[in-house]
Amino acid sequence: MADITKGILYTDEYQITMSQVFFRLGIHEKPALFEFFYRKNPDYGQHQAGYSVFAGLDPFLDWMTEAKVETTDLEALRAQKSRSGKPLFDEDFLSWLNKNGSFDGLSLRAVDEGRVVHPQVPLIAAEGPLVQAQLLETALLNRINFETLVATKAARVREAAGESLVLDFGLRRAPGEAGNAATRASLIGGADRSSNVGMSYALGLQAAGTHAHSLVQAFMALGMSELEAFQAYAGVYPDDTVLLVDTVETLESGVPNAIKVFEDLKRKGHKPVGIRLDSGDLAYLAIQSARMLDKAGFADTLLVLSSDLDELIIWQIQTQIHQEAGRYGVDPDALIKRLVFGVGTRMVTSWGQPALGGVYKVVAVRDDGHWKPAIKVSDTMEKVLNPGHKKAWRIYDERGLATADFLSLSDEAPEKENVLTLHHPADSAKHRRITMDKSRLEALHREVWKGKRLLEPVSLSVMRERKKQDVEKLDQGVRRLVNPHVYHVSLSEKLWTLKNKLVEEVTGKQ
Amino acid sequence: MADITKGILYTDEYQITMSQVFFRLGIHEKPALFEFFYRKNPDYGQHQAGYSVFAGLDPFLDWMTEAKVETTDLEALRAQKSRSGKPLFDEDFLSWLNKNGSFDGLSLRAVDEGRVVHPQVPLIAAEGPLVQAQLLETALLNRINFETLVATKAARVREAAGESLVLDFGLRRAPGEAGNAATRASLIGGADRSSNVGMSYALGLQAAGTHAHSLVQAFMALGMSELEAFQAYAGVYPDDTVLLVDTVETLESGVPNAIKVFEDLKRKGHKPVGIRLDSGDLAYLAIQSARMLDKAGFADTLLVLSSDLDELIIWQIQTQIHQEAGRYGVDPDALIKRLVFGVGTRMVTSWGQPALGGVYKVVAVRDDGHWKPAIKVSDTMEKVLNPGHKKAWRIYDERGLATADFLSLSDEAPEKENVLTLHHPADSAKHRRITMDKSRLEALHREVWKGKRLLEPVSLSVMRERKKQDVEKLDQGVRRLVNPHVYHVSLSEKLWTLKNKLVEEVTGKQ
Repeated sequence: MADITKGILYTDEYQITMSQVFFRLGIHEKPALFEFFYRKNPDYGQHQAGYSVFAGLDPFLDWMTEAKVETTDLEALRAQKSRSGKPLFDEDFLSWLNKNGSFDGLSLRAVDEGRVVHPQVPLIAAEGPLVQAQLLETALLNRINFETLVATKAARVREAAGESLVLDFGLRRAPGEAGNAATRASLIGGADRSSNVGMSYALGLQAAGTHAHSLVQAFMALGMSELEAFQAYAGVYPDDTVLLVDTVETLESGVPNAIKVFEDLKRKGHKPVGIRLDSGDLAYLAIQSARMLDKAGFADTLLVLSSDLDELIIWQIQTQIHQEAGRYGVDPDALIKRLVFGVGTRMVTSWGQPALGGVYKVVAVRDDGHWKPAIKVSDTMEKVLNPGHKKAWRIYDERGLATADFLSLSDEAPEKENVLTLHHPADSAKHRRITMDKSRLEALHREVWKGKRLLEPVSLSVMRERKKQDVEKLDQGVRRLVNPHVYHVSLSEKLWTLKNKLVEEVTGKQ
Repeated sequence: MADITKGILYTDEYQITMSQVFFRLGIHEKPALFEFFYRKNPDYGQHQAGYSVFAGLDPFLDWMTEAKVETTDLEALRAQKSRSGKPLFDEDFLSWLNKNGSFDGLSLRAVDEGRVVHPQVPLIAAEGPLVQAQLLETALLNRINFETLVATKAARVREAAGESLVLDFGLRRAPGEAGNAATRASLIGGADRSSNVGMSYALGLQAAGTHAHSLVQAFMALGMSELEAFQAYAGVYPDDTVLLVDTVETLESGVPNAIKVFEDLKRKGHKPVGIRLDSGDLAYLAIQSARMLDKAGFADTLLVLSSDLDELIIWQIQTQIHQEAGRYGVDPDALIKRLVFGVGTRMVTSWGQPALGGVYKVVAVRDDGHWKPAIKVSDTMEKVLNPGHKKAWRIYDERGLATADFLSLSDEAPEKENVLTLHHPADSAKHRRITMDKSRLEALHREVWKGKRLLEPVSLSVMRERKKQDVEKLDQGVRRLVNPHVYHVSLSEKLWTLKNKLVEEVTGKQ
């Protein structure tokens, strides 16, 4: 990895300065356990997610494999000066870092990519020498926060779109070089296909697309017409013709011209695919376009809708079609089945909540052969860290639905218990007991890294299937687009007791 | 460029399908002119930008240099199938693309990076063979939209922060691999330094940072105290000690412990640098911390504030300090001078408006030795494209302040006119005449690419100086954080007339 900006120094300065302190104190190789989790599902203002979709792990493990301290990194660190004018980093530390500045001492457990996840649950647990675990933080947060955020938004678009095809059109509005990660996360979370050519190919999909206004504009500038532009397109793609009908005027020009081209295709034995609407009142235009297409004998063509769509706008379009289509003699259900949603900006930027805010916190340090829990208190019990070396579980009820996620200490064996006590993570008054005879406990973590990558890459379809299965196991209320039911994440009795004890010790309060 | 996901196929599918249509029609090498511009300054909900800061050009030109159709790209395209089962792309087209799939036929004019820019003004104009110009679209939008968006947000943070140091702490919350672009744009737009180690080094800056909660937490888990963690840090960095004081309790534990360490440093002849506050009521805690520090004789230490800051929160903190500090015997102005703002999530994601929405539109095609203007009409005149081959100018008044940007057709020479007529781009009733004897006209574009990169890279400090100079030349009203004065962007008489004529031709309406 020659580019100094993409390797191990793709990190925050304080990771390195703290590492030198740990080194100087001789605790740099003490085993430590850090956990990645997020505190709240994305909240988009008037609406919020009831669950998230975990994504970004596989590319992050690739980064971990490549990221090692190299000579150029040492030069960069050597160039840093203290306010005193002396070098900020000492040669003995840099020499240690040169030998140990990689992730070859770490073990990582993680949730499978594509799975539905919830706040407070550790999604990645990194264990190993304090400095290596510390140096992982920035890149981990940077990668995992973003892909999980976008996969979550895409899952919401999918919830709204129902059975309709969803196309990711977001590359141009995705944040710079994160465009490929945005595509990947969109496809894991809910998009069926993407316009991103290279990334689609890398993921084993064919890219999706229609044409742009520029096609029609260029023809018109050269003295030709919208109809001629459509004819040219259909001539090259007779079996794949989707025409963008709003460059001139949708209902007066675009749709009538598209119908002329479709009739021509039909005569030649081809099946026209559809039209795309990219501006105006999409529900109204879809109804009117459908009416015209139906009348011309193209009742099975698709209507691709695009233009700043998100989950609420898709929902609104469907609702408006239900309310308005009948008035124009169009069957709303039939029309909705013909819709394809091209979703861009608002999916790949997670419009309304453009950061997940996941954190990576030290929860235990090993000393004298024991894991010593670490805590970080806060004004509110909700923000107090869940301390200690832990395991994460999901509990399914007798219907097979996920009823809660559950955190225990690692030296507990809840899978062997007949009755579990589930504590609310912040409110001591809230706890409940469940008998496990009809419930099932699932371990959420698998080991993905042990000195090097253990996890075999899986295909996109595997991740999508995980997400689909997990969503189907959610209570319908958790899946709501607005005001979702809160999914419970609970602590074991032992973890709850430990947490309270540590808070008392640190604050001296009860 | 071996990675298929990062080269010329970092694009939307329709760029390739349209290219084949142009190729089939024989117009693929017709000279075309595309322009990049954005329609509105970022609007963050309750507040909006009065101007933007152009960024992302230099890395984009680097991408253009590398991006060429390669064998692997052709394989990917060859794998694409029509619904008919036949290949989507024909071999003659792929063969042409193999020879011509780069940007070696294009010329680009662009605004200088770091400059203040305004809606509707072409910031990049790309001229050359239709297919090459078309293939540039997605990557250009992807890169330039993002960096300009973040540089604009950073400029707002700078407006709010006044003379205070602003540190970019955003890497962990930046969108995946766009983290470096976010750092770069933040530094162009308004941040003084960044925590991003690799990118800071690449840009010739030393990275900035303090320490994390994990330092204190790890010490405490090992049976030591917050004070011992602070002492360890100060022991390693006696001349660079900034202590994070909120791991346990800010005013009862963190600040008193920091003061103990500072006293020790002072005894040893070192100058303590400051503390960092990362949670709670930052204004109140800054006042109380300052009071304690002052009393202990550390009235010149810095207070680094962080925790989801943005321009409004910084403004609120300063206002609250002005209102509240006196009550505790702290001089508000002196305290504000000691503040350093660590800004992360909300700067690098452009919180409230996470996409710029810039577009890249064909505005002219050359045929029979003439540039034929292209237009795209819309429901509203505001969204109608400004057609034709154009030049972009800035007009400064007799005070040297920028009073308007001005678009003319390329065959006009407004720099030779004594009187200019400035037309509102959408409203025919709005126009004004200005005499140029006391005003100055500045051409906004320079040629940056002609078959290959022409623009010499400039240092970060040059871009920052451009931004600073441009901001100083803005009317104070345009710089307002809330409800900014609208900066005028006007069309020449000739351009205005052309635009209206084309709209009439296309729509048949007047």
